[in-house]
Amino acid sequence: MPRSKTPPAVSQNEADHPTSPIQHFAVEESLLLDSGASLGPWQIAYQTYGTLNADKSNAILICHALTGDQHVANANPVTGKSGWWTSMVGPGKSFDTDRFFIICANVLGGCMGTSGPANHDPLTGKAYAVDFPVVTIRDIVRAQARLVDRLGIDTLFCVAGGSMGGMQVLQWAATFPERVFAAMPLATGAKHSAQNIAFHEVGRQAVMADPDWRAGRYLAEGTRPEKGLAVARMAAHITYLSEPVLHRKFGRKLQDRTAPTFSFDADFEIESYLRYQGRSFVERFDANSYLYLTRAMDYFDLADDYGGSLAAAFKGTKTRFCVASFTSDWLFPTSDSRAIVHALNAAGASVSFVEIETDKGHDAFLLDEPVLFATSRGFIDAAARARGLKALDPKELDR
Amino acid sequence: MPRSKTPPAVSQNEADHPTSPIQHFAVEESLLLDSGASLGPWQIAYQTYGTLNADKSNAILICHALTGDQHVANANPVTGKSGWWTSMVGPGKSFDTDRFFIICANVLGGCMGTSGPANHDPLTGKAYAVDFPVVTIRDIVRAQARLVDRLGIDTLFCVAGGSMGGMQVLQWAATFPERVFAAMPLATGAKHSAQNIAFHEVGRQAVMADPDWRAGRYLAEGTRPEKGLAVARMAAHITYLSEPVLHRKFGRKLQDRTAPTFSFDADFEIESYLRYQGRSFVERFDANSYLYLTRAMDYFDLADDYGGSLAAAFKGTKTRFCVASFTSDWLFPTSDSRAIVHALNAAGASVSFVEIETDKGHDAFLLDEPVLFATSRGFIDAAARARGLKALDPKELDR
Repeated sequence: MPRSKTPPAVSQNEADHPTSPIQHFAVEESLLLDSGASLGPWQIAYQTYGTLNADKSNAILICHALTGDQHVANANPVTGKSGWWTSMVGPGKSFDTDRFFIICANVLGGCMGTSGPANHDPLTGKAYAVDFPVVTIRDIVRAQARLVDRLGIDTLFCVAGGSMGGMQVLQWAATFPERVFAAMPLATGAKHSAQNIAFHEVGRQAVMADPDWRAGRYLAEGTRPEKGLAVARMAAHITYLSEPVLHRKFGRKLQDRTAPTFSFDADFEIESYLRYQGRSFVERFDANSYLYLTRAMDYFDLADDYGGSLAAAFKGTKTRFCVASFTSDWLFPTSDSRAIVHALNAAGASVSFVEIETDKGHDAFLLDEPVLFATSRGFIDAAARARGLKALDPKELDR
Repeated sequence: MPRSKTPPAVSQNEADHPTSPIQHFAVEESLLLDSGASLGPWQIAYQTYGTLNADKSNAILICHALTGDQHVANANPVTGKSGWWTSMVGPGKSFDTDRFFIICANVLGGCMGTSGPANHDPLTGKAYAVDFPVVTIRDIVRAQARLVDRLGIDTLFCVAGGSMGGMQVLQWAATFPERVFAAMPLATGAKHSAQNIAFHEVGRQAVMADPDWRAGRYLAEGTRPEKGLAVARMAAHITYLSEPVLHRKFGRKLQDRTAPTFSFDADFEIESYLRYQGRSFVERFDANSYLYLTRAMDYFDLADDYGGSLAAAFKGTKTRFCVASFTSDWLFPTSDSRAIVHALNAAGASVSFVEIETDKGHDAFLLDEPVLFATSRGFIDAAARARGLKALDPKELDR
């Protein structure tokens, strides 16, 4: 697959006709969803990097987070910004595009080319909007498995991702254990906590309170619930950071002024920053997708699908795991990762675990974290050796 | 002052004509505010409990929190519910109405009878709305001091309150040290953190995003930004609780159903609970008041008024302090209380400090916390003895 060198022109319709490669599935290839609904025809948009080797044993699937997309290491066609995980994916990086064939697909329910509420139903020609079926993390993973089938890949060398991406990693390992050689769930949990559901519900209510949401039919009515979605993003964004990093970066610093204005202007830098986060998000994300994907995360409770035992989800697994959490992540605190590790231990799985010291909060998995880089590189290299893939020259590890 | 025995009829106009006692101040008695604006005529609504003794030495001022009001120990005239601090204020309670004269006033900028954006400007007859001047915690305290003057009280035996109420306590001690014999700032901080400002900004943006806010003029236009205010309350409410208490009370329990609905209904109890919190809040609170009072909290930075030194704010103070924090309070964590205690120590003040173990989060100061009751009772009793007030009979301490 071609790797984008320069940002393509911004498409106004990435949902139906993405600039990414796409796989179409006909009605006969419908997805049967956890809700009981059947989705078809449907499509999945994705990016790849690197070259699939002859025995198709070097494929790595990257799973993106709630508001991420398939543009993991190329310029984003909507924002023009560089990919969201270039720190981890690229030549010589942990997910080395010189050695591995990297795949990242837009999630089911997303708005960047995989079927979701922003798409038009191929059968009716009308926008799905809230008629799109509610999907789960397992549905998202099932869709990815169909793509992997299409690409002719039996076993993925590795499945990796953070946050909602990590949920997908866990779901892959549970649903398709024989298809996952190695798994890296980062900054994630095996279920969504009450507090996390609460924050998501605030975001959904903010979107749905916006009269421009039009009971979900805004695409047909030519409106966009931008204000509501911006508020949702602002609330969520606070949870992606930590109190210490907010204190370090913003504290009580005033924005371009020396004294408070005694008004409701954005006097403080943190206010200005949050408003910017809200504004820029609505330019690239669909409000209904936000509802659907937060819902998918809320519904996620892996143990619940295995009689309440998380260890049962991983029973007999041969997948090797690398679990990582971040000390200042309060959205998916280390205790969530420990629960995963305990279950893997109980299942007799091969698992390494690291809690990484940082003040950057949940978003640390996306940022420049040398310990994460070293951990993932060591894990991938060992797994590659175990898989019989050509190992990196030892001096490569130092670069 | 009479103590309400039964809930009065709900008044539709508690802002202008509260059921509470009220003090009016004429233009000549205007409040000069931190913004430079002058407010007058103005009014302050309050409740009192117990009897002021002959030398007026037994008065306790209770300061309420962001969405509280003066109805600390009587039925609320709007909701019909009992007062918000009956666990602490009443016969035989820590703030014993059989021994002390308890005062609680609605804050400046509030909506329960003290001048605020929901009031009509006596000079024009029009609703203030966003023409009401932005107020600070110091302005709120100045207004309370005028009320205390009117009541003929020179020195308050104690000033006490939690959260935004605790900010007022600290401000009282700093601005009027000779008028405060004892001070109890609970679950509070000497400044508002970046994270707290961020959450407040989300709430304000939610209100202002509601088209029924009408650029703040909703009272004149006959609308109410109920959806926006409900979203603001939902977001804030999460910060008043803790992850452990949300887990204990709600976890992932479904609401009146055995399986998820695969919809955006309130499947989870926590969603239903939050929606209820949002709905019930808008019935009793004014949206503009919410903007003004969150702003007052954001602006609070006591050290900033004293050259950046919190100790300087308390220099030479003779007030005796009792500071309390709660282990699971992440809005005003113990570190905020420690900063207050360190400053008081540096100022040579008399201070006792307790960090109370609880999973109830920030709201713990309003709840049934035996250690808080014991601490406050011990502090108040010792202070009463030092003040020469009749001490409780020792056996009274056991009841």
